[in-house]
Amino acid sequence: MRPALPPGAGRDATPGPGAGPGIEVGIGDDAAVLATPDGRVVATTDFLIEGRHFRRDWAGPADIGHRAAVRSLADVAAMGAVPTALLVALAAPSWLPSSWALDLAAGLAAEAARAGATVAGGDTASFDAVLLAVTGLGDLQGRRPVTRDGARPGDVLAVAGPLGHSAAGLALLAAGRREPALLIAAHLRPAPPYDAGPEAARLGATALMDVSDGLLADLGHIADASRVAIDVRTEALDPAPLLRAADALGAGRPLEWLLTGGEDHSLVATFPAGTTLPPRWRVIGEVRPGRGVLVDGRPHAGPGGWQHFR
Amino acid sequence: MRPALPPGAGRDATPGPGAGPGIEVGIGDDAAVLATPDGRVVATTDFLIEGRHFRRDWAGPADIGHRAAVRSLADVAAMGAVPTALLVALAAPSWLPSSWALDLAAGLAAEAARAGATVAGGDTASFDAVLLAVTGLGDLQGRRPVTRDGARPGDVLAVAGPLGHSAAGLALLAAGRREPALLIAAHLRPAPPYDAGPEAARLGATALMDVSDGLLADLGHIADASRVAIDVRTEALDPAPLLRAADALGAGRPLEWLLTGGEDHSLVATFPAGTTLPPRWRVIGEVRPGRGVLVDGRPHAGPGGWQHFR
Repeated sequence: MRPALPPGAGRDATPGPGAGPGIEVGIGDDAAVLATPDGRVVATTDFLIEGRHFRRDWAGPADIGHRAAVRSLADVAAMGAVPTALLVALAAPSWLPSSWALDLAAGLAAEAARAGATVAGGDTASFDAVLLAVTGLGDLQGRRPVTRDGARPGDVLAVAGPLGHSAAGLALLAAGRREPALLIAAHLRPAPPYDAGPEAARLGATALMDVSDGLLADLGHIADASRVAIDVRTEALDPAPLLRAADALGAGRPLEWLLTGGEDHSLVATFPAGTTLPPRWRVIGEVRPGRGVLVDGRPHAGPGGWQHFR
Repeated sequence: MRPALPPGAGRDATPGPGAGPGIEVGIGDDAAVLATPDGRVVATTDFLIEGRHFRRDWAGPADIGHRAAVRSLADVAAMGAVPTALLVALAAPSWLPSSWALDLAAGLAAEAARAGATVAGGDTASFDAVLLAVTGLGDLQGRRPVTRDGARPGDVLAVAGPLGHSAAGLALLAAGRREPALLIAAHLRPAPPYDAGPEAARLGATALMDVSDGLLADLGHIADASRVAIDVRTEALDPAPLLRAADALGAGRPLEWLLTGGEDHSLVATFPAGTTLPPRWRVIGEVRPGRGVLVDGRPHAGPGGWQHFR
């Protein structure tokens, strides 16, 4: 392991060795040493790759750092855990200015901080594309992890955070538009409600994941792992923020974005019927006996999972 | 987080969810959940990138998986910890056959197993080059981590494992040779003595790291962090295994390989004078007042750190 980011890049955005809560050894040694008071650690690694997950002409370095952090932080939250630390492997062309790397580090550190986590280490390499692999670590605070296999017929399906906003923002960017700003920002800097993950665990969620590939695709993972059917009620979805994008791009798009748009990294969970849910958890369907994912009681005929932009 | 390796690749080489010692949740959910009985976790992330760290015409997929595992496992050992788990982010061209990915997974899992660790999760992506970012996690078993900043004047400098073998093997490959097999294998599949890391910690090592960039370059990190001078005694280095390569490539090369060759990932440590060291720890120098790295009492005039092969 080397310093998390190019020389100088960590100075403002990331702490030095030993800095940060729960960090016994931080950036600058062979490895970081982090406190795991729970006696377990939640750990996940995710790529963010130029040309596949972002385009440098649409996303600035802070956006890219932000989105790389989001992918791993949301995975940690989706186990019901609190994010504690990120390890960042960054490959980038050596001709990129150091200000570019500084901005990327700042975006990454800011989103980590919003989740309560610290950049604790990483690696850098010179490469002809920008590519990040971010490892997220988290703490379960004594709770059981909420996996994908616990949904039971009769459970309610609920979501915390927006659906389809990132997809609408991407479609707008692809059409050369920079408005509505809400949707552009939702694509460039999605803001998952990380604390809804531990909240879902405390509320007794039977299954939990983040929506990275699209609602239907990700519910398919829960349905498969839990051996149940999951029925999404479209009238319960909230198309309002998407309608202004539909004015520009077509009336049929909002439902498609809601059902198949990825990368909002909102949290979707199943809860036992009768669970009293805080307002940010919107009930959007239910779990039934059977297999697979239904939309308003019928198999979905539209497009499947999220394909990024190619 | 997705499955650690391409569809099918994990079936033979990596465990399913929940498999492996200390793995509460493994491959297949948003994140892995791993036991950390020590109440801390050692964590490190390292790249292995095609064209920079390996060439696919020289290294087979099992070699590449092996070397990706080595980089992170050695970093964990270099803190004095026992490796417990790896998370593997693998980007590769989609046209590579699935047998290629299976072989890579097998090489990775085999070297992880040799260190006592398990592949617990990861991510995959389609990309036009092969690129791995491997996160290593480890357990300190109640010991303090051995960092780079504790070397003191009077300490002895010792190494466990070979020096210069990987560099000699790489030079042989670059010259179109496949012999001596010992040196070719040392480059394609370095075999660090991982358990020498915890052993060094138990013996009271004052500083510890793995030799990834070359002996002099890596000792420079210890000298800088500890604010001491480190003097390497060349007569204590073992050139014997390198002499057959020197026959082919030049008489001056063995000393250069010993001092500046990287990627053997042997462990180098400083110990208080008078420490009784097991035989695999070869004393090769000492720590003095001052700054920087010396060779036989003088500043080194030769090449610096390891530049891989470009």
